[in-house]
Amino acid sequence: MRMMYMKTSGVQLDTDYSREMLGMMEADGLLEGIEYDFDPGPDVPVVQGRDAMRRYECGILERVKKWVDSDRYDAIVIQSVLDPALFPAREISPIPVLGCLESAVHLASMLGRRFSFLCTVPVEMKMIPENLAVYGFTEKLASMRCISLPVPEVKKRLNRSAQIDAMEETAVMAIEEDGAEVVILGCTGLSWMAPELRERLKERGYEAPVIQPVWAAVAFARMLVRLGMRHSPLAYPAPIPDPDAMLMQ
Amino acid sequence: MRMMYMKTSGVQLDTDYSREMLGMMEADGLLEGIEYDFDPGPDVPVVQGRDAMRRYECGILERVKKWVDSDRYDAIVIQSVLDPALFPAREISPIPVLGCLESAVHLASMLGRRFSFLCTVPVEMKMIPENLAVYGFTEKLASMRCISLPVPEVKKRLNRSAQIDAMEETAVMAIEEDGAEVVILGCTGLSWMAPELRERLKERGYEAPVIQPVWAAVAFARMLVRLGMRHSPLAYPAPIPDPDAMLMQ
Repeated sequence: MRMMYMKTSGVQLDTDYSREMLGMMEADGLLEGIEYDFDPGPDVPVVQGRDAMRRYECGILERVKKWVDSDRYDAIVIQSVLDPALFPAREISPIPVLGCLESAVHLASMLGRRFSFLCTVPVEMKMIPENLAVYGFTEKLASMRCISLPVPEVKKRLNRSAQIDAMEETAVMAIEEDGAEVVILGCTGLSWMAPELRERLKERGYEAPVIQPVWAAVAFARMLVRLGMRHSPLAYPAPIPDPDAMLMQ
Repeated sequence: MRMMYMKTSGVQLDTDYSREMLGMMEADGLLEGIEYDFDPGPDVPVVQGRDAMRRYECGILERVKKWVDSDRYDAIVIQSVLDPALFPAREISPIPVLGCLESAVHLASMLGRRFSFLCTVPVEMKMIPENLAVYGFTEKLASMRCISLPVPEVKKRLNRSAQIDAMEETAVMAIEEDGAEVVILGCTGLSWMAPELRERLKERGYEAPVIQPVWAAVAFARMLVRLGMRHSPLAYPAPIPDPDAMLMQ
């Protein structure tokens, strides 16, 4: 199986971190039998809101079109918990396109009834619930919890121990106060914390699954390729080549 | 990976058909790297309603307990689109337990926004929507459509061509009249029709995914085992060993 793995910001720190995540997935056995290429994504700043997001998505779609046309891949994974350009990408792709958020909530819903997101920045707190409404998963959302950690410091694991302490406390609040049965890391920068967070929650008496959304997206890419399935063109129809033809629909 | 594959009726025709389905999944590459054992299930008649279902589920749970205690498996798949005993089984199992219906709708929801079920018997028409309500997928259900075919004849592929004609017409109605973007086979007996149904729908201009729920369950079992994840004990808590302790909760 051949996968295109597309990162979604042009910042160098993010490129380094993405490669680190791929290394972690490799160590977890998640990439076994998968040959992948790495696309650093459109050369734009980190997305902080909806306005930047829309322009950013155009850059992603140009790249998706290029990888689709190359005919070299069985699936495309877009690395971002905000699922930028996910549905439009499916309109122009005959191969499966996976987003991290959609994958994470479908996995979470197989493991428990209600989940909470642990996020790091306001754009996640705003846009994740919007996407969940589109996906039809609003009722399964126990809560959105934000931890006050600067993302670059999280990615660099500066002050590592205090960072995990903060995550642990927030996760326990999500479980005890919000009724979360599954915890989803609402920022890819938090992915490295999952193994230790699971251990800490276990020590506190909570064997809650902790989902790394990028892991979920790669796992679903593999599943769909093995099943020989892809998104329905009835749900994500290809653009009509001749716009005048729309008059006859 | 080691999987226990449990069939859910004691009828001999079903045992033969289940083995045939495993052969089809093998041919589709779905069982690659999976060692499985086959449990013919509790020795009861085919379930025709909720009353029989409840008693039947007790038989399934006894077997789940036995397979869990054997410590030989990484996952258990229960072969039935009615997901008998799925949630209670998770309460007594430290390994993933997968049901066909829950798996099928999660897969369908990754592929499109709305799906229809093609069923063969009234019990499916009644109980599938009940389960979808529990799973939180009611809004994604475009329709339940029943085709008038006797299940034993379908499993034996008697009158094969007329059977597929009926399926094709029903699937097209689900797409054109009900807005289905994904088609789910609402009876395991229909599984063998999937490849030909896909071809026929394509000829009619509809490249709708056609989901075989048993395939979906096996695919999710593989995914969870690879991810090292299982259902949340917070969602499916183990029974409290000493009932008196409940007073102290």
